[in-house]
Amino acid sequence: MPEFLELLPPPEALTRLLENLPAQVDPEEIDTVQACGRVTARSVVSALPLPTFPRSTVDGYAVRAADTYGANDSLPAYLQLMGEIPMGAAPDFAVVPAGCVLIHTGGMLPEGSDAVVMVEHTQSARPGEVEILRAVASGENVLKVGEDVAAGAEVIPAGTRLRPAEIGGLMALGITRLEVARRPNIGILSSGDEVVPPEVTPGSGQVRDVNAYALSALVQESGGTPVRYGILPDREEALRKSAARALIECDAVVITAGSSASTRDLTAQVINSLGRPGVLVHGVNVRPGKPTILGVCAGKAVIGLPGNPVSALVIASLFVTPVVQALLGLKRGGPRPSVPARLALNLASQAGREDWIPVRLISSQDGYLADPVFGKSNLIFSLARADGLLRIPPDATGLAAGEMVDVVLF
Amino acid sequence: MPEFLELLPPPEALTRLLENLPAQVDPEEIDTVQACGRVTARSVVSALPLPTFPRSTVDGYAVRAADTYGANDSLPAYLQLMGEIPMGAAPDFAVVPAGCVLIHTGGMLPEGSDAVVMVEHTQSARPGEVEILRAVASGENVLKVGEDVAAGAEVIPAGTRLRPAEIGGLMALGITRLEVARRPNIGILSSGDEVVPPEVTPGSGQVRDVNAYALSALVQESGGTPVRYGILPDREEALRKSAARALIECDAVVITAGSSASTRDLTAQVINSLGRPGVLVHGVNVRPGKPTILGVCAGKAVIGLPGNPVSALVIASLFVTPVVQALLGLKRGGPRPSVPARLALNLASQAGREDWIPVRLISSQDGYLADPVFGKSNLIFSLARADGLLRIPPDATGLAAGEMVDVVLF
Repeated sequence: MPEFLELLPPPEALTRLLENLPAQVDPEEIDTVQACGRVTARSVVSALPLPTFPRSTVDGYAVRAADTYGANDSLPAYLQLMGEIPMGAAPDFAVVPAGCVLIHTGGMLPEGSDAVVMVEHTQSARPGEVEILRAVASGENVLKVGEDVAAGAEVIPAGTRLRPAEIGGLMALGITRLEVARRPNIGILSSGDEVVPPEVTPGSGQVRDVNAYALSALVQESGGTPVRYGILPDREEALRKSAARALIECDAVVITAGSSASTRDLTAQVINSLGRPGVLVHGVNVRPGKPTILGVCAGKAVIGLPGNPVSALVIASLFVTPVVQALLGLKRGGPRPSVPARLALNLASQAGREDWIPVRLISSQDGYLADPVFGKSNLIFSLARADGLLRIPPDATGLAAGEMVDVVLF
Repeated sequence: MPEFLELLPPPEALTRLLENLPAQVDPEEIDTVQACGRVTARSVVSALPLPTFPRSTVDGYAVRAADTYGANDSLPAYLQLMGEIPMGAAPDFAVVPAGCVLIHTGGMLPEGSDAVVMVEHTQSARPGEVEILRAVASGENVLKVGEDVAAGAEVIPAGTRLRPAEIGGLMALGITRLEVARRPNIGILSSGDEVVPPEVTPGSGQVRDVNAYALSALVQESGGTPVRYGILPDREEALRKSAARALIECDAVVITAGSSASTRDLTAQVINSLGRPGVLVHGVNVRPGKPTILGVCAGKAVIGLPGNPVSALVIASLFVTPVVQALLGLKRGGPRPSVPARLALNLASQAGREDWIPVRLISSQDGYLADPVFGKSNLIFSLARADGLLRIPPDATGLAAGEMVDVVLF
């Protein structure tokens, strides 16, 4: 059983993997109404300004600002009421000097007017006349043409994950279809002579397949489509054949191998047989998940995950999710959402190694308490009991109770 | 135009809304493989222990621990190799005193053995004999029956949003179908004489419908199904008729009204006409979004959102998302993921009011800088340009540049 000769830190391992992947995004056109969560394949440029006409931001009276100068409670300006701007229509008259027009929020400013006096700052004394109790500057309470977006401006860069705000913005511009990155297909192979499908009652010494399904869910959450290739015996030929098929049919392949050293070597052999450059990283300086294998074959990522369910999920979040994001063209380096918490107890760690500890978050008087969920990395429910993961950086030999930490939610 | 008589703080407003909603969850049975992101409708109890048999956590030799006591590098224990445990099968022999069996990670411990010596701490000197270089305690390197989950234990409480870890855990237990909360249907009505559908080219004074689509995306993200009822004119009868239909067909109704005071009153009238108790909250002490209307009719939430796109989305995240979560039976009070950042500049705020400011996150040497995106709340792209929202609590009169803040991602 060969030992790991060089254990790379996780960030370096990821960089080595991504550097060897071609940067290309496969676009598809979809309805914008279905596009929330998808990633833009191209930059979106606005053909028109927003708003396209000057709009009132308040309920009040459209005026010529100059007509209101000097007006106040004791010395109002008196303006002639010329009518009302209907919503959704262009005014069919212009505001003349000493004139004003009733306007609603969102209404189109008529010709001649350049500001709006809020209704709260007016009084209607005599019919056909409005008392203006406060002066307005030119442009006050008005949304100018192009104030939201100028014509020709880039409104959404390529590689942006679309949120509700972007969906609204696209609709405002009339962009009802757009090009997004196709969801990458991620082939998932389980191997292990002891593994049976979840719907089967395991015999003595057998266990149900956990990793293929937990991983499928993670791939889906990351924006990919999982394609499961079933459970394969721990024999090189069977594994190689299915992996080769998956490599043709999918955009990346993940093998959740058995957890013994011999099956890990099998995974490495299979990856090396699938194409150049083959295995790039064999062993990562992280716990859990040291026996991780990262490779690239024929321009596609092939990842060998450790067999223990907790290790498999932690490692998948560190390496499979970024591969899916790279295939989507998603820009890297965005903030990972986390929750600040106070560590409940001392945690030891080996210097030089990055540790990920499942923690529960307990609500307390002064914020959250991060309570580590201890358990061997074989225990899938130790993750289900946790709210998030706590990272101990490689330059630390541990964390002290009471320290503030960031818990990455999963 | 009636003024808001009582402006409730957002948390009190939400409590008043949720208190008036019946707490009932509508379950449906689905395949576990499709259940990531869904919410459990019932508590999940394990019928069996996990693991169901004692398993080795390392590659090595299954032994009787007592046979290794005192063993070390200079004085090894010599044990007789009795064979190898095949993966996925029950051992067909027992370990006798001074005997040992080759076992792989995940393998089933044979009768008679109670610990495993790691292969690294052994040496095979003569054929059929293994040198044990380190003593093990009983239970060492062994996963005991029920160590992950005891038979009969609750593994997932009702009201839990399922993540990849839970999906894996359910599969480990052979639970391939389960009851989750049906996605609630949220009826969405747009009103406004000036509003046209996104696919239509707006005429003078007209704007495209932004809110119905941004809101649909938010509802989807929250776990609900948006049902759009189109754009209605600002007339009570038309709005009332569509809202009544939506109230019958959906689990909650959201009306994105025009932004002028008169149309807000219209929404309140319509809500009061739909059933008891009607409007519960008219006006919330928050910016943006003061003219929010919260009501309950015939046991269902009916929410009137402000017309400005930014206000509508901020308010929807404060009130519509919690309603969807309540309908899903999701437990409240979970941590909202955020990113700690240093505020880039001073922000003023009115005491007593809760403010939500869109901010961009800028990566810097010492973490993130939160840079406010200023813009009137009519500007949908001011939200699209932001990474998250910053909350200024009601008891603050502002935040100072350099202060650490939590940015809620959206």
